[in-house]
Amino acid sequence: MAEENTSKVCEAHPMTGGDGPNSYAKNSNIQRDAIDAAKELVSKAIAENLQIEVLPSNTFRIADLGCSVGPNTFLAIENILEGVEFKYQRKGLNSQIPEFHVFFNDHTSNDFNMLFKTLPENRRYYSAGVPGSFYGRLFPDASIHLAHSSYALQWLSRVPKSVVDSNSPARNKGRIHYSNSTDDVIRAHETQSTEDMECFLQARAQEIVYGGLMVLTIPGRPDGTPHSDASPNVIFQLLGSSLMDLVRKGVVSEEKVDSFNILTYSTSAQELVAVVERNGYFSIEKMVGLPLPLVHDTILYAQLLTSHLRAGMEGDLKQQFGEEVLDELFDLYRKKCEENASSLDPGKAVNFLVVLRRN
Amino acid sequence: MAEENTSKVCEAHPMTGGDGPNSYAKNSNIQRDAIDAAKELVSKAIAENLQIEVLPSNTFRIADLGCSVGPNTFLAIENILEGVEFKYQRKGLNSQIPEFHVFFNDHTSNDFNMLFKTLPENRRYYSAGVPGSFYGRLFPDASIHLAHSSYALQWLSRVPKSVVDSNSPARNKGRIHYSNSTDDVIRAHETQSTEDMECFLQARAQEIVYGGLMVLTIPGRPDGTPHSDASPNVIFQLLGSSLMDLVRKGVVSEEKVDSFNILTYSTSAQELVAVVERNGYFSIEKMVGLPLPLVHDTILYAQLLTSHLRAGMEGDLKQQFGEEVLDELFDLYRKKCEENASSLDPGKAVNFLVVLRRN
Repeated sequence: MAEENTSKVCEAHPMTGGDGPNSYAKNSNIQRDAIDAAKELVSKAIAENLQIEVLPSNTFRIADLGCSVGPNTFLAIENILEGVEFKYQRKGLNSQIPEFHVFFNDHTSNDFNMLFKTLPENRRYYSAGVPGSFYGRLFPDASIHLAHSSYALQWLSRVPKSVVDSNSPARNKGRIHYSNSTDDVIRAHETQSTEDMECFLQARAQEIVYGGLMVLTIPGRPDGTPHSDASPNVIFQLLGSSLMDLVRKGVVSEEKVDSFNILTYSTSAQELVAVVERNGYFSIEKMVGLPLPLVHDTILYAQLLTSHLRAGMEGDLKQQFGEEVLDELFDLYRKKCEENASSLDPGKAVNFLVVLRRN
Repeated sequence: MAEENTSKVCEAHPMTGGDGPNSYAKNSNIQRDAIDAAKELVSKAIAENLQIEVLPSNTFRIADLGCSVGPNTFLAIENILEGVEFKYQRKGLNSQIPEFHVFFNDHTSNDFNMLFKTLPENRRYYSAGVPGSFYGRLFPDASIHLAHSSYALQWLSRVPKSVVDSNSPARNKGRIHYSNSTDDVIRAHETQSTEDMECFLQARAQEIVYGGLMVLTIPGRPDGTPHSDASPNVIFQLLGSSLMDLVRKGVVSEEKVDSFNILTYSTSAQELVAVVERNGYFSIEKMVGLPLPLVHDTILYAQLLTSHLRAGMEGDLKQQFGEEVLDELFDLYRKKCEENASSLDPGKAVNFLVVLRRN
C-alpha cells in the first residue's frame, strides 16, 4: 500500500539539514523567490478553481509534497490557507471555514525533527509529517483537498536502469547529469521522467477528492530548448565539469564521477501536458511560466547559485566524494558560474506553475 | 489551536533515541510486556465496544499518543488493526474494511526521524507523525476513530508551580520524585495530574468521533496504596537516593538534585474514574489491572529495571548531571534495586487498561 510496494527504488535526496551556514533552511532563496512569485497566482487559482460545493464543512486537508525542512513549506502553506479562506469569505461563508489539517511530506531521510521544531508557533492548522516518496501512495483514498508541490517534481525517482548498467552505451561517463550526455542517456531520462509523472498522477488521482486541486511549481525548460542548453541543466553540467577538474588534479577518482548522477530532469510544457492528458484524471486549469529572478551582477549571481546548490547537494556530494573536497569543489564551481554567466540565461529556463483539478 | 495555545508549559521527556545499547528502542521490554498482556484484552475490547454503525466506510483513523520511537508503537498498532478488522469480519463486512490512517504522536523533541526509518515495511496503513503534547489539541474535530496511549499518561505536563518556587515549603529538597516528599509536594502533583487528565480528556473529546474509542494503558498504584509505597514510585526514589549518594561523594552537586524532578505520577483507579466522570464525554467500558511481570531472580530484575530506566531517563539525566556520571549512577542504582527488591513488589503497582467510549 505504501510507497515501498512499488517495485522501483525511490532515491532520496535530502536537502542539507539543520540550520548551519550551508543548510537548506538558510540557502533556499531561489525556491523562496518561486513561492513569492507564485503567491498571487496561487491565491487567484484557488479562488477561481476551488468548487465550493465539493468542499468539506469540517476538515480541509492539504498536502505539501517534497516539503524539505522549511521555512519555504510554511510560507507556501500560509499562501494556500489565505487563498482557501478568501474563497469561503467571498462566498459569504465565513462561519463555515473549516479546520485545516496540513500534511508535510518528504522522503524518509528528510530531517523531520528539524521540520517539526521549526513549525510556526501561531499556525492555524493541525500538522503531520508524512515520510515516503510521492511517486507512490501516501494518503488514503479521496482524503486530500489540495496537494501542493514546489521545486520537487524535477527529481527523478531513480537512476534509469540503462544508465546504471555499466555495459550499456548509455553509461554516463565523465558526466554527472543527463543533459550533456549521449542521446541514449537523454532518452533514458525522458522515459524515467514520464514513468515517474505517471506514478505521481496515478497516486494523486486516488488520494485527491473530486474537485480537489493540485498546485505544482516545477522548474523546467522552454519548449524547443535542447536539454543541453536549458539553464537549470547547465547548473549541474558546471558542477560535473568542476568535479572533472578535481579528477585531473588527482583529488577525486574518475570512477566516482562516472557513478554519480544528479537525478533531476527539466521537463517542458509539451511533455507536462501530454502526461496529464494521458493520465486523464485531472484537467489543466492553469499552466504558466513564473517570472525568473534576474540577477544582473554576475559575481553575486554566481555566489547565489553556489550556496543554493551546496545547500541542495552537499549531502549527496559528501557521501560520494568525501567532505574534504567540498570547499575546493564549490570554489571551482563559483568561478565556473562567473565564467559561464551567459549560459545561465533565464530565457533558457522556465518555472511552471501548474494548477490541476481532479475530475 | 495547536498545543502551544494552552498557557501551560509542556515538558518533554524524550526516550533515548537511536538504536544503541542504551536506546529506548532496545530497552523497552517492560512496556512491551504491557502491550503483550494488553493484546488480547484490546482486541476483545474493540470487538465488544466499537459500534459498527458509527464506523467510516472509507478511512479509519488511529492515533497513538506518546508513541516514542518504536518498536512498541508498531506492535500496538498491529494489535488494534487486527481487532478492528476482526470486528468487520465478524459482522460479515469483509468487503467494507476501510483503509487505515495511523498518526504517531509524541513531543516535538521525540526522534521522529528514527521512528520513520523503522516503520514496518509491510504495513497495511498510511502513516503520519504528529509532533506536540497530547495535553493539548493535536487533530481536527471528530477526526479520530480510535486513540491509543500506552505508558505515556503517567508523565505530567509540567513541574507543579508550587514545586518550582524555591521559597515554597513544597520545594523538593534532596529528592527527585514527589512520592517520597512532603504532603505539600504530593498534593501539588495530585492537582497537576488531575489538571493534565482534564486537558487530555477535553482535547480527545473534541477529536474523537461519537462512538469512537480510547484504549489507554497507564501504570499506577492500587487504591489505598500510599504514593511512597507504590513500586513505580519506588523505582524513582531509588534513583534519587543513588544521586544523593553521588552528592555525598562530591560527584554531583546537591543543588542539581534539588532542582531535578522526575515528572511521573502514579494514579489510582478511584482518581481515574473521578476525572473521567467529571469530564463527562466518555463512558468507561472497561477498566482492569493488567498482570504485572513477575521476575523471581532479584539480580536479573535489578538489571532489567536499570536498563529500562536508563533508556527512559538518560537524556534528562545527561542534561542535568553530565554524561560522565551516568555509568557510576546506574551501577549504584542497580545495586540499590537488588537490596530493595522487596519494595519493588508487583502487588504495590498496577497497570490499568482503560477503554473509554466517546458518547
